[in-house]
Amino acid sequence: VKLSQLGEFGLINLLSKEIGKSSSKVAVGIGDDAAAIKSLPAGRHGKNNKLLLITTDTLIENVHFKLKNTSFFHLGYKALAINISDIAAMGGNPTFALVTIGANKNLSVSKIEELYRGIKSLARKYKIDIVGGDTVASPKELIISITLLGEVEKDNLLKRSGAEVGDAILVTGDFGKPASEKFRIPHLPAGRQGSEFRIRLKEAQIVAKFRLATAMIDSSDGLVRSVLEICKASQVGARIWLDSVPVAKDATLDQALYGGEEYELVFTVPRSKAIALKTLIEKQSKTRVSIIGEMVSKKNAIKLVDVHGQVCDLKSGGYEHFK
Amino acid sequence: VKLSQLGEFGLINLLSKEIGKSSSKVAVGIGDDAAAIKSLPAGRHGKNNKLLLITTDTLIENVHFKLKNTSFFHLGYKALAINISDIAAMGGNPTFALVTIGANKNLSVSKIEELYRGIKSLARKYKIDIVGGDTVASPKELIISITLLGEVEKDNLLKRSGAEVGDAILVTGDFGKPASEKFRIPHLPAGRQGSEFRIRLKEAQIVAKFRLATAMIDSSDGLVRSVLEICKASQVGARIWLDSVPVAKDATLDQALYGGEEYELVFTVPRSKAIALKTLIEKQSKTRVSIIGEMVSKKNAIKLVDVHGQVCDLKSGGYEHFK
Repeated sequence: VKLSQLGEFGLINLLSKEIGKSSSKVAVGIGDDAAAIKSLPAGRHGKNNKLLLITTDTLIENVHFKLKNTSFFHLGYKALAINISDIAAMGGNPTFALVTIGANKNLSVSKIEELYRGIKSLARKYKIDIVGGDTVASPKELIISITLLGEVEKDNLLKRSGAEVGDAILVTGDFGKPASEKFRIPHLPAGRQGSEFRIRLKEAQIVAKFRLATAMIDSSDGLVRSVLEICKASQVGARIWLDSVPVAKDATLDQALYGGEEYELVFTVPRSKAIALKTLIEKQSKTRVSIIGEMVSKKNAIKLVDVHGQVCDLKSGGYEHFK
Repeated sequence: VKLSQLGEFGLINLLSKEIGKSSSKVAVGIGDDAAAIKSLPAGRHGKNNKLLLITTDTLIENVHFKLKNTSFFHLGYKALAINISDIAAMGGNPTFALVTIGANKNLSVSKIEELYRGIKSLARKYKIDIVGGDTVASPKELIISITLLGEVEKDNLLKRSGAEVGDAILVTGDFGKPASEKFRIPHLPAGRQGSEFRIRLKEAQIVAKFRLATAMIDSSDGLVRSVLEICKASQVGARIWLDSVPVAKDATLDQALYGGEEYELVFTVPRSKAIALKTLIEKQSKTRVSIIGEMVSKKNAIKLVDVHGQVCDLKSGGYEHFK
């Protein structure tokens, strides 16, 4: 069945059924003008000590993905995963999602259902309610846009600003794998990537819970770019120790520094507490944490330091759209 | 300057500056992984009696608009307006917005700024904070996707469901103008439509405040389609009295019934209170309200009744994507 046969209202009906039951916090779900959600509960002392988080990310065919390299299931999975990663990077917990799909009218409905299954599999895992969205015709490219809400305790919030001179730079996992695979296996079999996608929500919540970190970001635009963003927001400089960067198997150092598309956490911690926090996270999550550098004064900018102590400049890099 | 020269990060910087200062409820605005908003305040009795509303709408070039028929200012204005209309139709008040722009890299940056000015002009008027979004490359068509949050007092919430047999059907304003203009003046001068766009937020809040209405929707997909959606959600049927439908100047009855793209309110009220509510809204808003029909039992379906009392079936209609 093609979308043109089912029509917009048919598709909304179908997807509403697929999405199924919502949690008791959802007063109005899919199918009205807007979704309505019961407000966050007041805190222990009668005051509401939580913040509402909101993020949105959009994937466009032939810009962010090619259909021949991915399955629809994986696409849906990834579209939600990158949003979860943003909520995680604030120290928060994802709660409610809106899903917008722009598709050509000749696309088969079963493909859209597969896409939704990818989204739902992850939504179920993280107890996220899909409460609405929009379905629109797209003349050519497939578009998936997700808005994700979340919540965070005020004192657990981790912004990009907040890093201070003397803080250590910590990262989860390793870097460069997506970039290296692009070169080695440009045509990954359908669905292959989905199982590989790591979401660092648990790790981020451990970081937030201990309230030792001063800033956090996810590394979607590349490791160097992520450090750069923390530096810009925090008005500091950084030294990245090249021999401490965790490079993924089969990836080069360059791919690890500039490749992007991995969704690891990059965060800063006062130097005296860095090893303690690294150990705590590794113990509670089984995820490797590496200390890869330190924050320095803004006037020293961001530099890379090699194993011989030689300082070198950045390549202008990190993934940037439009350019 | 083209987008390709400015780059994604340059554009984000530019737009962040354009958007300017946020309200004190915004803990984290544009430029972090997610926006963070202070939660809704608790109600008078220590309990939070408000609901969070969320809606999203997307406009795609050559589907929802053609660039030769519109200005970028109007496009931005409309993209936010249709979302405000959705929040209004729930009885709510808009609060925070996320704006996603997908644009070809050869598009001039000044056009994007003009688009943002359109969004901002309306955001300012309704005290909406723009707290984030996404900027992505689009291979061809321009894409504007807005997610809008709002809030509503629990007892003021108006869903599509809730209409009952015997309720009167009320509408604001008149119908058929956008459809008639498409035929009469297919190439409207740039910006012309923006000034014409009516947002019924004030009227919707009056409806909600009096707590007499049983269901409400905005008429973006056409008058008949809107009544149909209320019927489906409320499990009732309807009679629309053709001679009571407020047809816009120069529009035909058919365009008024099926044309769509006007954002009027369609709501239901117990028959005994319909005239009182109509009078209250007209007095407080200076906007015309018409009683155009009544809800009947579901088994009687939705029918049109002409001035002679003749009952006729609906055309299958209302604007539907993909078909």
